[in-house]
Amino acid sequence: MPDLWPEDFARLPDAESLLQLTSHAATAYAAPSETNVVPAPGSQVLMTLIAGLVSPGRAVILGPTYAEHARVAALAGHEVTTLSELAPLGEADLAIVVNPNNPDGRVFGKSELLRVAEQQRARGGLLVVDEAFMDAGPRGESLSLHVEEVKTVVLRSFGKFFGLAGLRLSFALAATALAARLRAKLGPWPISGPALTIGKAALWDWDWIENTRLSLGKAARRLHLLLQDAGLESVGYTELFHLVRSPDAPRIFEKLGRSGILVRRFDEQPEWLRFGLPGKEEEWQRLEAALRA
Amino acid sequence: MPDLWPEDFARLPDAESLLQLTSHAATAYAAPSETNVVPAPGSQVLMTLIAGLVSPGRAVILGPTYAEHARVAALAGHEVTTLSELAPLGEADLAIVVNPNNPDGRVFGKSELLRVAEQQRARGGLLVVDEAFMDAGPRGESLSLHVEEVKTVVLRSFGKFFGLAGLRLSFALAATALAARLRAKLGPWPISGPALTIGKAALWDWDWIENTRLSLGKAARRLHLLLQDAGLESVGYTELFHLVRSPDAPRIFEKLGRSGILVRRFDEQPEWLRFGLPGKEEEWQRLEAALRA
Repeated sequence: MPDLWPEDFARLPDAESLLQLTSHAATAYAAPSETNVVPAPGSQVLMTLIAGLVSPGRAVILGPTYAEHARVAALAGHEVTTLSELAPLGEADLAIVVNPNNPDGRVFGKSELLRVAEQQRARGGLLVVDEAFMDAGPRGESLSLHVEEVKTVVLRSFGKFFGLAGLRLSFALAATALAARLRAKLGPWPISGPALTIGKAALWDWDWIENTRLSLGKAARRLHLLLQDAGLESVGYTELFHLVRSPDAPRIFEKLGRSGILVRRFDEQPEWLRFGLPGKEEEWQRLEAALRA
Repeated sequence: MPDLWPEDFARLPDAESLLQLTSHAATAYAAPSETNVVPAPGSQVLMTLIAGLVSPGRAVILGPTYAEHARVAALAGHEVTTLSELAPLGEADLAIVVNPNNPDGRVFGKSELLRVAEQQRARGGLLVVDEAFMDAGPRGESLSLHVEEVKTVVLRSFGKFFGLAGLRLSFALAATALAARLRAKLGPWPISGPALTIGKAALWDWDWIENTRLSLGKAARRLHLLLQDAGLESVGYTELFHLVRSPDAPRIFEKLGRSGILVRRFDEQPEWLRFGLPGKEEEWQRLEAALRA
């Protein structure tokens, strides 16, 4: 991580640095140009602003998925439906796909998604693809390169990939005119000085990015084996989490909780548990010990 | 400033810390309760979200003032007018007052503002009072204590007062139901880990707050004398900036620029210059030398 200076906290982030960040992000995320990139203090507020770009209508979400998308779409006045197949999303005013999906790791192919966007274009709809877990995964399926030609907004999460969620840094990638509208809503100083300094350095450091991909891949395999050894059936995964199924899930959830390990459970799928990647070696060992207990 | 830890950057800000922050902010800003407090990554995005709470109508801004208010209100679809007197704002759907005003330091009395809010209530309008420069100034005129009883949203800027603008931390104070709507739009992790850790500590540290008020007051007097010695006529000021008038303003602007000192000029008032507070002693001396040159 680059050093932070008092100025990062004291001064308003300057326009030139912001432009550098967007340019580095355009390259790192393979967006057509920096005019397609909107930096923001996390994806949440972007979701609110994007849902507000579409007049209240029919929002269709590919799910089950990250619940915040449905909450935010409803808040913007849309009538929200969740479907498990992609094709009907072409008829939505606002279509939302998380790719790879959270929590089951399902990956949607670029050509399928482009077909949805194409159908929506005819109706004036908007496709949002939340690629929060794309950086460590199948980057070839990203729509980032196509945001200028099809009506889609891609969300990328800096914090998840770099293990810096507390920094609050995400990006929307969109056609130049749409990106300008989002940028105008966020105003001239959308992100913090620390987020600007760290983001600018990290997104320009190809070794850092590739090493992060490698270490996340290694950690994901370690988690996979650890859960397999514990006899848990894999439902799906990305490099950042693993979803398992077990009739014992409620008991395992409690057992882990007593060891201070929080895993994600799901009200509507009580046999599911989603494990995030442990960080430090001691956290790995704590998880291993707790699963064996 | 409190120490920051890797966890402040790595982890998503937790709900408990966020609650502590809002509780400390409620006390520091004299809001009725923490349910009236909405932390946000800067005032800009709050302005966008607040302007969007009111159906497109007539926005009236007390001005001339900080230009972002007019830009953001127009962006939200309002028809924007700027007036120099307060009374007619009672008939606006969205009324916006910066108090103390930027750039002229004009202060509006609490009772006048409550009268505007009262008039607006009858018509279903909303009053926004941007108190970005209130903390160092006439806090008795703040509407913060009244947000539950009158339909108003008060904006407070953490960064300006504490000299930490790069942190991106501001607050909206509003009636509980309105605050909940804003909070829902910002989502569960509205601010960064560093902003949370520093904000929580600073807003609970009464010595820090009072010392900051004292040192800003001292610095403001020093700036006042320095500008007076330079023969510049005072138009108005707060503890954080000073507005002067001079027929020589364009020449002074250029002269200061050559010394690396940026002051604010105004297209519609070419005789005005707004000076911010210098920071380090060397910046004071640079300003003094440049004004004498």
